Amino acid sequence: MLPIMDIGQFLLALIAIFAAAKIFGEIAERLGQPAVLGELIGGVIIGVSGLHLVDPHNATIHLLSELGVLLLLFLIGLETDLGKLMSVGGSAFVVATVGVVLPFAGGYALGAFLGMSSMVSIFLGAALTATSVGITARVLSDLGHLQDDESQIVLGAAVVDDIMGLILLTLVGTLAAGGALSVLGVTKVVAIAFGFVVLAILIGSKLAPMLIRAVDRIEMQKGLFFAATIFAFLLAYLAKAVGSAVIIGAFAAGLVFSRTGRGKDIEHEVHDVAQFFVPIFFVVVGAAVDLRSLNPFVAETRYFLLVGLALTAIGIAGKVAAGFAVTKKGMKRLVIGVGMVPRGEVGLIFAQIGLTAGLIKEGMYSAVALMVMLTTLITPPILRKLLEPKAGSGGDSGAVSDYVMEAPMDRDERDH
Amino acid sequence: MLPIMDIGQFLLALIAIFAAAKIFGEIAERLGQPAVLGELIGGVIIGVSGLHLVDPHNATIHLLSELGVLLLLFLIGLETDLGKLMSVGGSAFVVATVGVVLPFAGGYALGAFLGMSSMVSIFLGAALTATSVGITARVLSDLGHLQDDESQIVLGAAVVDDIMGLILLTLVGTLAAGGALSVLGVTKVVAIAFGFVVLAILIGSKLAPMLIRAVDRIEMQKGLFFAATIFAFLLAYLAKAVGSAVIIGAFAAGLVFSRTGRGKDIEHEVHDVAQFFVPIFFVVVGAAVDLRSLNPFVAETRYFLLVGLALTAIGIAGKVAAGFAVTKKGMKRLVIGVGMVPRGEVGLIFAQIGLTAGLIKEGMYSAVALMVMLTTLITPPILRKLLEPKAGSGGDSGAVSDYVMEAPMDRDERDH
Repeated sequence: MLPIMDIGQFLLALIAIFAAAKIFGEIAERLGQPAVLGELIGGVIIGVSGLHLVDPHNATIHLLSELGVLLLLFLIGLETDLGKLMSVGGSAFVVATVGVVLPFAGGYALGAFLGMSSMVSIFLGAALTATSVGITARVLSDLGHLQDDESQIVLGAAVVDDIMGLILLTLVGTLAAGGALSVLGVTKVVAIAFGFVVLAILIGSKLAPMLIRAVDRIEMQKGLFFAATIFAFLLAYLAKAVGSAVIIGAFAAGLVFSRTGRGKDIEHEVHDVAQFFVPIFFVVVGAAVDLRSLNPFVAETRYFLLVGLALTAIGIAGKVAAGFAVTKKGMKRLVIGVGMVPRGEVGLIFAQIGLTAGLIKEGMYSAVALMVMLTTLITPPILRKLLEPKAGSGGDSGAVSDYVMEAPMDRDERDH
Repeated sequence: MLPIMDIGQFLLALIAIFAAAKIFGEIAERLGQPAVLGELIGGVIIGVSGLHLVDPHNATIHLLSELGVLLLLFLIGLETDLGKLMSVGGSAFVVATVGVVLPFAGGYALGAFLGMSSMVSIFLGAALTATSVGITARVLSDLGHLQDDESQIVLGAAVVDDIMGLILLTLVGTLAAGGALSVLGVTKVVAIAFGFVVLAILIGSKLAPMLIRAVDRIEMQKGLFFAATIFAFLLAYLAKAVGSAVIIGAFAAGLVFSRTGRGKDIEHEVHDVAQFFVPIFFVVVGAAVDLRSLNPFVAETRYFLLVGLALTAIGIAGKVAAGFAVTKKGMKRLVIGVGMVPRGEVGLIFAQIGLTAGLIKEGMYSAVALMVMLTTLITPPILRKLLEPKAGSGGDSGAVSDYVMEAPMDRDERDH
């Protein structure tokens, strides 16, 4: 498919995405699994490994999926109490650090063991580091456990992890481009990455209440929706502009609004639009999975299949171990560790940079992709085993879980 | 801007679109004008004639704007009673026919008068025919008059007009490509264009209730929303596939659902998503307006400026006259005629084909664009003069008008 679609192709792609998301999401739920697992599998079926109904690399589809994960993180931020998040901040930081160091060391060791150059080994290690906060948060929310202490630790750690992953990405990207790392350069990258979040929250906490008061005064139609959305998009844009990720900016925007006392209102306003975009993200993640490059019956792909499985094992072991690094009493450490397992687009971006720079070949790219895919697909069912869905999870945990269980409010509205 | 944006550019474009739509929409309303006029002007300001914040020709922005007008026509269809539409069908057909024949003849005559070839004259005539149903429907809905007999005639006539415009487009396109027209060929094009709507409504009326029953039985989360959306997208896709327009398919889908008795529920479900996409369409229409090509102080553009003004006069006179062709008693014929005045993308598509085929040059393209622009911009304020906004129009005329006046339902929800 060309990067530019006409409206007919676009509509077909949307039809395929929504049909896959709803049908396989529903099947997953009936089997007692989180809906997100069904959406991912539905994506695999309609994507490059299956029916080719959706091209995940099409520019428009890709942008809409990014909008989806951005809105998801905005909603997650809206449901997150900054104070609570800070109270588990120490544990989250420990989990994030251990969860970056161990997989990185493991990946590097695997590369060295296989006789690869230290540059390639660094790439493999780096690709194993970043947790996909979108998938983890969605599963926890699907199961109604987003407000648990364990979930808050996972959420905080996943955000820190994402920031660390972006720092590594900048550093490794510099190395790949043949540049040298200086202490000053590294410090600057780290300062920008963490500084953005801190500044966004500090300044945002002043601006958000003013914005809401202004909207309330003007009484513009759907003013709250557009004010909140524009604010979230702006923080996401700024995050990207300073070298962080859009989802970090969107999450920060959600955190800031949740402190204004109007978080629930905004959640309600943004809910239906998120409903439209969020499934696009998960289906597109699934659609990008290319099973052909890992065919066990073809000799040349078998080696990379094994490397991929080894990467997966290292990736899982490193993150689960990170969960056990939590010292706080009474925590379900296994839940925290497993919650950190899914890797996301950052891992794939690493592999992509390596591919473009000529450091790794297609086969190794597929091995990294297999690791991303497996860690993503196994997490929802395992978390489901470890956590009982909470009764009425759709209602009391807010807008995000409405992807899974229709909130009572929606039913009321229907009867109006 | 390149046809492919990154997520940062995409977010900036969305921020600019929403900010322009809300700020200028609000200003328009405070001045007693329909919000859509503000959105169009906001688009002019941030588009190619102004700040260049939005590239209306970017593939993704263009697709999202098409999704916007598609959802708008779906909502308009949901609010339209097929029986009522049929009862004014005769008048609508007369208005449509006169409103196609007169502007076509006028445009052809102007071309002949200016010494152009008969092919170019046919192009000019054809570009004057099609009413933009999106803009007209939006204005009538903004003013709370969508259920008036006059509005129903305008709506029906605009749809027939759009179909006639598409037929002309096919025929003129064949001529432009150097092909010949046969009676059989013309008959086939006409049969497909009208046949699609009839078949879509007949078959859709059987399928839609089955679909709704199935969704109700499965009790899928947000099932009604996704079932209705997928159905509308599918009809829109099919309309496009048989050579009609996506908005015709979406309007037919709305008509079909409005007959199931669940039209209001579906409106409510689709409302927030439409809210997000519809302003994108109107801002992008404004953003595409290029004022530079019609600078009265440059000698070479002055000629085309005059041609554009002549086309505009013919376009307005032809459509207003069409309104007076209505024989039904007690009708506000001027409202009907003015309601038919705005030209839309079909006119521009004609001009684009002529440009690509080398039949017309940039200057004549701009003259057609001026006609499209002026007819679009003058209609909202004139209709506003002719029609008093109905009190509480936001509430009783349903979801479409909520772009203008927040429905009481939304206020209730906020207090939950």
